[in-house]
Amino acid sequence: MNDFTYYNPTKIEFGKAKENNIGQYIKDSGVKSVLILTGSSRIKDNGVFKRVTDSLDSAGITYKAVEGVVSNPLLWKVNEAIKVAKDNNLEAVLGLGGGSVADSAKAIAAGAMYDGDVWDFFIQKAVVTKALKVFTIMTLAATASEMNGNSVIMNDETQQKYSIASVLLNPVVSVVNAELQASVTPEYLAYSAVDIISHTIEVYFTASVHPNFNSRIVESIIKTVMETTEILIANPDNYDARAEFAWVSAQALNGLTPAGTLGGTFPNHCIEHSLSALYNVAHGAGLSVVIPAWMKWHKDQNIKQYERFAKEVFGKNSADEGIVALEAWFDKIGSPTTLEKAGIPRDGIKGLAQNAHELSNLWGLGSIYTVEVIMEILEKA
Amino acid sequence: MNDFTYYNPTKIEFGKAKENNIGQYIKDSGVKSVLILTGSSRIKDNGVFKRVTDSLDSAGITYKAVEGVVSNPLLWKVNEAIKVAKDNNLEAVLGLGGGSVADSAKAIAAGAMYDGDVWDFFIQKAVVTKALKVFTIMTLAATASEMNGNSVIMNDETQQKYSIASVLLNPVVSVVNAELQASVTPEYLAYSAVDIISHTIEVYFTASVHPNFNSRIVESIIKTVMETTEILIANPDNYDARAEFAWVSAQALNGLTPAGTLGGTFPNHCIEHSLSALYNVAHGAGLSVVIPAWMKWHKDQNIKQYERFAKEVFGKNSADEGIVALEAWFDKIGSPTTLEKAGIPRDGIKGLAQNAHELSNLWGLGSIYTVEVIMEILEKA
Repeated sequence: MNDFTYYNPTKIEFGKAKENNIGQYIKDSGVKSVLILTGSSRIKDNGVFKRVTDSLDSAGITYKAVEGVVSNPLLWKVNEAIKVAKDNNLEAVLGLGGGSVADSAKAIAAGAMYDGDVWDFFIQKAVVTKALKVFTIMTLAATASEMNGNSVIMNDETQQKYSIASVLLNPVVSVVNAELQASVTPEYLAYSAVDIISHTIEVYFTASVHPNFNSRIVESIIKTVMETTEILIANPDNYDARAEFAWVSAQALNGLTPAGTLGGTFPNHCIEHSLSALYNVAHGAGLSVVIPAWMKWHKDQNIKQYERFAKEVFGKNSADEGIVALEAWFDKIGSPTTLEKAGIPRDGIKGLAQNAHELSNLWGLGSIYTVEVIMEILEKA
Repeated sequence: MNDFTYYNPTKIEFGKAKENNIGQYIKDSGVKSVLILTGSSRIKDNGVFKRVTDSLDSAGITYKAVEGVVSNPLLWKVNEAIKVAKDNNLEAVLGLGGGSVADSAKAIAAGAMYDGDVWDFFIQKAVVTKALKVFTIMTLAATASEMNGNSVIMNDETQQKYSIASVLLNPVVSVVNAELQASVTPEYLAYSAVDIISHTIEVYFTASVHPNFNSRIVESIIKTVMETTEILIANPDNYDARAEFAWVSAQALNGLTPAGTLGGTFPNHCIEHSLSALYNVAHGAGLSVVIPAWMKWHKDQNIKQYERFAKEVFGKNSADEGIVALEAWFDKIGSPTTLEKAGIPRDGIKGLAQNAHELSNLWGLGSIYTVEVIMEILEKA
């Protein structure tokens, strides 16, 4: 077992109608003004925005709102909001939306306390040393952004989808009310399920040290995601399944699953970011294309863990059967498992590999995930 | 799934030799003076105390030491240390020892900021609203005291073993170096294993709502405890097993396993506290006496969960077989499973039940766990 530091100071307020208390939660944290960040206009149409601002008003919290964050959130929007935060001396950022909104909120929180270009953090030219306080109200479960300090942002000028991570960006309080997540389309529910699974199996398969307890937690998360996704596809109104799905999604990337492991990497995320960046594929949809292909390429490097996965998650007796079962499950829930199904032409593979290789270099994986290797993996998709 | 608040701001510094950095961890938290609390003189004999004070010296942290905390930690010792903390205006308490030391450190932290009698918190006459900062260096894995705000203290005058819980008492930083835990006797290793298991199965069996994810986490914890305990009995020097045991013990009582459940209670702890209080039985030893007896008494109230437990943990097909298997495992590792084995006379049952009933009343379980019911349960032990 490897040494580690585990530190996750985010308070999760989980349950029905908890967004109505957001003003009090923010006030209790000693904050008096926030930037509210949102995505589509749906959040206003469905009345949630008004309930949130009413709560802020009641608690005496002042606010400015910035709307229009999109899936695969864009740097220019982050910069627009940073300016608003700076111009108004706001003390915190409240992300009211899905993972893209929460991720943008964190980038804004870091950028608002920094004199340079916020992108400096993403290209590792600068390190986050201070930030505005972050709060989130999650309307989608997938990224675990509500319970970690990670932010993934798309630089629309350079076509780079890069990330930062700092405990300073962990939300102080995150509200998770699964009822707010019930309007997700079946398509995006599937993508979210893939994303959650991906957060756990990257380290599960790549770590050179992965204690049994960590494997058990990962398998518990995956089995629960599969179980609740299937319930929700059949019955989108099942609150308990929706809530369990939401909680498990947070557990999948809050620091628990890798604690004590050694050498885990995120090659599927690395490769997928190029699919999102170049073809604007939804992150989860890109992952379900990459993961089975990568597993086929990677399995012999850690065959015992693939056999374990097959047995524990699917009751299968070989690594290959486990991979096929996962791929079939992605198909079953409607997340694409080939480039073709994701609408990506095969002659785009080289461009994807080149884009992904820039990121694999940045993540210290460049010598393993060369352009050629990434092409070899994508050829299997 | 039930609404909940999850908040665990303790930073865990997990790994070899991390106690040598304790001065820096405390300094980073803005603290300049601490009360060091220890148990037996072994902590000085083995050199750990000196390494810790050297680290404090290097970081410019001043300290006063109080030693002599015993298993089933006593109120008079807590009061002695509160006086030292108050007299010296100390800012924090560093518990260097096992669960008894950590629990005492928390009681001291609460008592040092309170004008009245610290026991007021335990009898629910007062609520903790402020406390000194708590730090721990754990030399025994069992109580999860390193990662929660719970404290259990024995009032030696009234023969009451009572508890408090407050997030204000969560350690700011806890060092978990499994090497410091390697000298535990096989006997206490077994008691610790029982204790960890007990922390998860009380809610597992008593909750009226217990999502599958929670059940999977509990089963993961139990399987890992059993696996690592058996490795450690055969080979006490196995660091990886020791470390995994330590980490799982923290996960068993840090707020994760009950999150989203409804109606869970701790009747085994309630009953066991009387065994510790009246016969000075080690907590884990008392639990292994109570748990199988309680399970036999309780199983029909939640038979499906008992069947699940039997299947998932032991691969057995009935609730009864699961209970027998757990009892046999307690026997196998050397933790007592009958009153007789724990050295408690059968004519003590009534006195135990009366003592436990006082606590069941305090915990709101008095109407279920009457003197008669507790006697009925203990008769099965």
